[in-house]
Amino acid sequence: MNQNPVIGVFDSGFGGLTVLRALLHRIPHARYAFLGDTARLPYGSKSRRTIARYAAESAQFLVREQGAEYLVIACNTASALALDAIEEAVPVPVLGVIEPGAASARARSQTGDVLVIATDATVQSHAYAAACRTQGLRTLEKACPLLVPLVEEGWTQHAVTAEVFRIYLDELLREAAENGMAPDSLVLGCTHYPLLRPLIEKAVPAGMCVIDSAEATAEAAMRLFGQRGEDCARPSDQIRCFATDSVEKFERLGSRFLERPVGHVGLIDLGG
Amino acid sequence: MNQNPVIGVFDSGFGGLTVLRALLHRIPHARYAFLGDTARLPYGSKSRRTIARYAAESAQFLVREQGAEYLVIACNTASALALDAIEEAVPVPVLGVIEPGAASARARSQTGDVLVIATDATVQSHAYAAACRTQGLRTLEKACPLLVPLVEEGWTQHAVTAEVFRIYLDELLREAAENGMAPDSLVLGCTHYPLLRPLIEKAVPAGMCVIDSAEATAEAAMRLFGQRGEDCARPSDQIRCFATDSVEKFERLGSRFLERPVGHVGLIDLGG
Repeated sequence: MNQNPVIGVFDSGFGGLTVLRALLHRIPHARYAFLGDTARLPYGSKSRRTIARYAAESAQFLVREQGAEYLVIACNTASALALDAIEEAVPVPVLGVIEPGAASARARSQTGDVLVIATDATVQSHAYAAACRTQGLRTLEKACPLLVPLVEEGWTQHAVTAEVFRIYLDELLREAAENGMAPDSLVLGCTHYPLLRPLIEKAVPAGMCVIDSAEATAEAAMRLFGQRGEDCARPSDQIRCFATDSVEKFERLGSRFLERPVGHVGLIDLGG
Repeated sequence: MNQNPVIGVFDSGFGGLTVLRALLHRIPHARYAFLGDTARLPYGSKSRRTIARYAAESAQFLVREQGAEYLVIACNTASALALDAIEEAVPVPVLGVIEPGAASARARSQTGDVLVIATDATVQSHAYAAACRTQGLRTLEKACPLLVPLVEEGWTQHAVTAEVFRIYLDELLREAAENGMAPDSLVLGCTHYPLLRPLIEKAVPAGMCVIDSAEATAEAAMRLFGQRGEDCARPSDQIRCFATDSVEKFERLGSRFLERPVGHVGLIDLGG
């Protein structure tokens, strides 16, 4: 890995900025180009073929136009349905968010029973269940469609959000018990959920480990793309963000996800 | 108006089925073709030019392929930004949801001060404020982004939804008071909100009139497209529904909006 490699990070929206945040902590000397394909979200309701085309075009923009030497697919839907298509479309190493989340669950779980919360689209793809199965884990997945809008409303510490999460968690724990499972880990399978981590950690049963796919992906990127750069180069502090449609919401909400200003967001056109 | 005219109803998603439901009550002898452009939603985050193109293509499908003799645009964003483009694209009378909502507010409000709740995109367009202004009304608009996902989660009578609505309403009433307004009407400026009407009517101050844009639009359609058909023809009971992407969610949730089964939803392709 060179001193200041360019890492491309791709999401259908701006939730993937939580993955970029985790990457910045672990590989601070890299330069980053982030693309949110905001014009064509949500990917979750589209066909696999369409998602593969969108994701490949986005990956090509990051590699060809922004010089990315590594790609992180910070989008659960694209990771689930389009990783192969992206790898075919660009000549650089590609990392999705799902495998690292599953690998982290295997490393942490004692019982081998794991809960996964995610969006409806991610749950319907059963990508986490499949990835966990190859790790020898049993999983129970649950769609929590209210959590993304609650995060986007900024209610990350709100009593309403705590109540909504409690309802989802109760349903999940009840179903796990009915299935004879003894879950000790909860995977946050959506890039918005790290913003709810403090609230979620307060709500889960004592001893349950909360696994953040964004953190797990950044750790995997460090292993795959190179070593921790603290000693070999100073932090590059260079982030360029791009979106394919109105950048206003991206600029307004993005800094909460990145935990620093996103700065100017460039508007690009990838076609229909 | 002939005995059993074909009325085309268009929305970016399936929320507009509440408008179709209201139309069925008032013009029961018509035949209906409903199109949800689900592949390309949400319209709210897209540019005016893109929305105009999508809406015109959708309108042409309803007129050319389905024989619609009248069109109802049951989509706030398309009504706000693309009514002219649709009228240019098809040779039939076209009715949006915003003007009827504003006209109904004028008919009901005594004080002339009106509150409007809607999605972020509709509020940012200020289409209701503009339509109300031409009716001589003062308006205060508020985006309530959590209400659509709460409706889609099926929590239309849930304590969490009541609490979320109470928070939004308190903010709205406080801001109205600060502006020296005396609002006596609340316009439901989103096609999902009629499902919350019982909950909303319980929450608003005594004497405040809740105005449902879907109902107002159906009343306007009756005046514009023809007379109440009770005596002149038997109910046609004919509804054909179409969507541009995965029809599963449409079929699963649509019946709640329509208050009857939506039946088979045809999948059509309008392009990228």
